[in-house]
Amino acid sequence: MAEKLTSRAEDYSRWYNELVVMADLAQHSDVKGCMVIKPYGYAIWEKMRDALDKMFKDTGHQNAYFPLFIPKSYLSKEAAHVEGFAKECAVVTHYRLKAQDGGVVVDPDAKLDEELIVRPTSETIIWNTYKGWIQSYRDLPILINQWANVVRWEMRTRLFLRTSEFLWQEGHTAHSTSAEAVEETERMLDVYAVFAEQFMAMPVVKGRKTESERFAGAVDTLCIEAMMQDGKALQAGTSHFLGQNFAKAFDVKFTSKEGVLDYVWATSWGVSTRLMGALIMTHSDDKGLRLPPKLAPIHVVVVPIYKGPEQLAQVVEAVEPLIRDLRSRGIVVKLDDDDTKRSGWKFAEYELKGVPVRIAVGPKDLEQGTVEVARRDTGTKAGIPMQDAAAAIEALLEDIQRNLYEEALAMRRSYYTQVDSYEEFKRLLDEKGGFFLAHWDGTPETEERVKAETKATIRCIPIEQPGESGSCMVTGRPSARRVLFARAY
Amino acid sequence: MAEKLTSRAEDYSRWYNELVVMADLAQHSDVKGCMVIKPYGYAIWEKMRDALDKMFKDTGHQNAYFPLFIPKSYLSKEAAHVEGFAKECAVVTHYRLKAQDGGVVVDPDAKLDEELIVRPTSETIIWNTYKGWIQSYRDLPILINQWANVVRWEMRTRLFLRTSEFLWQEGHTAHSTSAEAVEETERMLDVYAVFAEQFMAMPVVKGRKTESERFAGAVDTLCIEAMMQDGKALQAGTSHFLGQNFAKAFDVKFTSKEGVLDYVWATSWGVSTRLMGALIMTHSDDKGLRLPPKLAPIHVVVVPIYKGPEQLAQVVEAVEPLIRDLRSRGIVVKLDDDDTKRSGWKFAEYELKGVPVRIAVGPKDLEQGTVEVARRDTGTKAGIPMQDAAAAIEALLEDIQRNLYEEALAMRRSYYTQVDSYEEFKRLLDEKGGFFLAHWDGTPETEERVKAETKATIRCIPIEQPGESGSCMVTGRPSARRVLFARAY
Repeated sequence: MAEKLTSRAEDYSRWYNELVVMADLAQHSDVKGCMVIKPYGYAIWEKMRDALDKMFKDTGHQNAYFPLFIPKSYLSKEAAHVEGFAKECAVVTHYRLKAQDGGVVVDPDAKLDEELIVRPTSETIIWNTYKGWIQSYRDLPILINQWANVVRWEMRTRLFLRTSEFLWQEGHTAHSTSAEAVEETERMLDVYAVFAEQFMAMPVVKGRKTESERFAGAVDTLCIEAMMQDGKALQAGTSHFLGQNFAKAFDVKFTSKEGVLDYVWATSWGVSTRLMGALIMTHSDDKGLRLPPKLAPIHVVVVPIYKGPEQLAQVVEAVEPLIRDLRSRGIVVKLDDDDTKRSGWKFAEYELKGVPVRIAVGPKDLEQGTVEVARRDTGTKAGIPMQDAAAAIEALLEDIQRNLYEEALAMRRSYYTQVDSYEEFKRLLDEKGGFFLAHWDGTPETEERVKAETKATIRCIPIEQPGESGSCMVTGRPSARRVLFARAY
Repeated sequence: MAEKLTSRAEDYSRWYNELVVMADLAQHSDVKGCMVIKPYGYAIWEKMRDALDKMFKDTGHQNAYFPLFIPKSYLSKEAAHVEGFAKECAVVTHYRLKAQDGGVVVDPDAKLDEELIVRPTSETIIWNTYKGWIQSYRDLPILINQWANVVRWEMRTRLFLRTSEFLWQEGHTAHSTSAEAVEETERMLDVYAVFAEQFMAMPVVKGRKTESERFAGAVDTLCIEAMMQDGKALQAGTSHFLGQNFAKAFDVKFTSKEGVLDYVWATSWGVSTRLMGALIMTHSDDKGLRLPPKLAPIHVVVVPIYKGPEQLAQVVEAVEPLIRDLRSRGIVVKLDDDDTKRSGWKFAEYELKGVPVRIAVGPKDLEQGTVEVARRDTGTKAGIPMQDAAAAIEALLEDIQRNLYEEALAMRRSYYTQVDSYEEFKRLLDEKGGFFLAHWDGTPETEERVKAETKATIRCIPIEQPGESGSCMVTGRPSARRVLFARAY
């Protein structure tokens, strides 16, 4: 850790950008808008992916892989899809280079008849494929997920939060009834919410997007919304009920049990490497990352305290049984016996990297038969008898996972304000930020006005709420229920 | 299984194409050259990926992710790389579409200043990144692997064997000494060979490519070569010692322990979804796939034999404890109680899909307290007492894995011919095909002549061989050792 991390209070945005780079999670590449995900960052993403993948498989889904490229004409087939989406795309126009003057140039003779689009999302190519897979109700449901890279051209990028290329998963399911597709849409939203809370230790609000915030081509978009430390919301996952829109666009029909020909019902749902940004901005502090143990690549770092190689060898030998015991419990332990780095440097480095537990052990500890165990979340330290340490740390990791969730929940609660007047809303939005639960008259005009005047958007219509009626905070017109406003990433 | 599979004897190539589609592994997409990997095929690929990934991590490698796009100019930086490679590429020239006449067109105002190439391989973008990561010997080695999609434009494609987009892994390592990089190159070749033999049950020949078959930009290319049932060879993996070529092209230097500034040494190594083709053409037969248990998505299928729903319920209930027992042993079991399909249809379907073991159980079996266990590799069936079946099947799966390897090894041996005259070589190449171990004078001219006259290429210079000298089968000139010729995929 060469430089000092900017504090959150000083400049939250700069703190985030520095932390991503200093903690070795990712960096900008020389290719505009594309990031390099470094090994430490990728290891966290792998843990997210593996946990989600298991949850998808446990709910009956299978993985498959569809082409990177989409013929340009496909994007025009679903009217709303092309209208609201997919304009900022990488376009492949040629398929060959040729040597010229010691370099390479694009071969003008190798122009494609129809341009190919690098997938921004795969509804079109997948529904074009499903057409060949579905004839009867017996072929349904199709429950498929894909892990892939996608590209949406971005001019202003931020690591993990907004990049031209990003990694994600996209589920694409096909059903014989509307009810079954709606149920799937809700099931996958629940999967995302459970994942966010149980693995990322990040509380989320489940809700429904307004018409103007809906996915282009969807009948209904459900989402999970999370609150970041700086009072801005972050959309962490979406699950779309697509109705029969894509089936109609790609002419995908099935014969029902009763022999009736009908269009197929669809859902799609996805989360992306954006979750890495959410994870960082939910938990981390001025010292660096704080990682929930369930997603931490390293659970415990062991830092020997010593003078000279002989003492180092003694300490390492003494701590080996503890390390073995921890590993036998499925805990990932790193012993940092690098003798070119000072222990103070190591302490700061692993705090920066968010390793949940640090064990420091030196000659004095050995004399007393203890190790010093420090937890990253609270910063507290305790001397623990060596023979009790493995069990204690196993319990501690669970406690850290729980505590990070509770801290995040407390933070989210402090950012959850019910307001009834537009003046109060505007004042508090600037003063403290966060989520605002307010009445809205249901019109896109009012939604647009709030956005133009305050940069806040309706994040969602929360699913769980009393649903009391009232009057719109902006226009005073009747409102059936409150919605959740926030400025957002 | 609607249609009958063409037999291998009738038309091997057609058999392969039909099998890939009929066994639900993959299909051509409507995007020229790109395939759709279907869930059953993807599940096999996932097992390959997971096994390899573990082997990479066990040998100290970490995963990371680099951009999909490469600036065109990067490809010109390593002279041999651009000369021998990377001409047939997908070229991105624009970054936006716009609506026009109800469709979309490429926005001419959104032309990129420099075209981007969809990565055909990532040496250039990765070494451009490593430049920022490496200053001193302390930053080395870097041992990174990437799982990714790549694109190499192909006019004539075959599912898994040659597609414009394919999935692969590419390892890219950086070292402070030539010796260490060479060692890494050899280590990863060994990893591939062990994977091929232990997981794919596919024997391979480890060897070295001749200069003309070497990877563009490599100092030395090692490879594993496998023999397919039709007597054609298939390159199953390559591991390249890149010397300092890419470090020089991207100016990546490090300061050694002794304070000397030098260019960094490099390796790269990869295997791809091509291995799916190798797996199929090594083991499968006229009834369909034969999958080695270690890569089979389903190990055991249970087919109830019954008349009417009551008998079906009885059979299913009776077989449940066995299924539970099998699953508790980590064996993946599918119970096919679909009452709309006949058992004969099911037998054929799971043979087509290559499921290693089939259990058939009906009222007569229940009376006798047995189940009928059939193995896919040999086709043999045996009645086994229900209470012994789980242990027997666990052992059987190991035996099938072993037997498939031995059968493949016998096949490969039958295709391994030592020849000393060019006439005999040409005659046997046409008559029986396979690998030919022959003397070669070491010149590209002779290599090219053999290729032009027979379509056979030097697959590799085998690493393990007596190394006796002789005279070239074509020119009679001196030869230090034999090389391996074959026609290849």
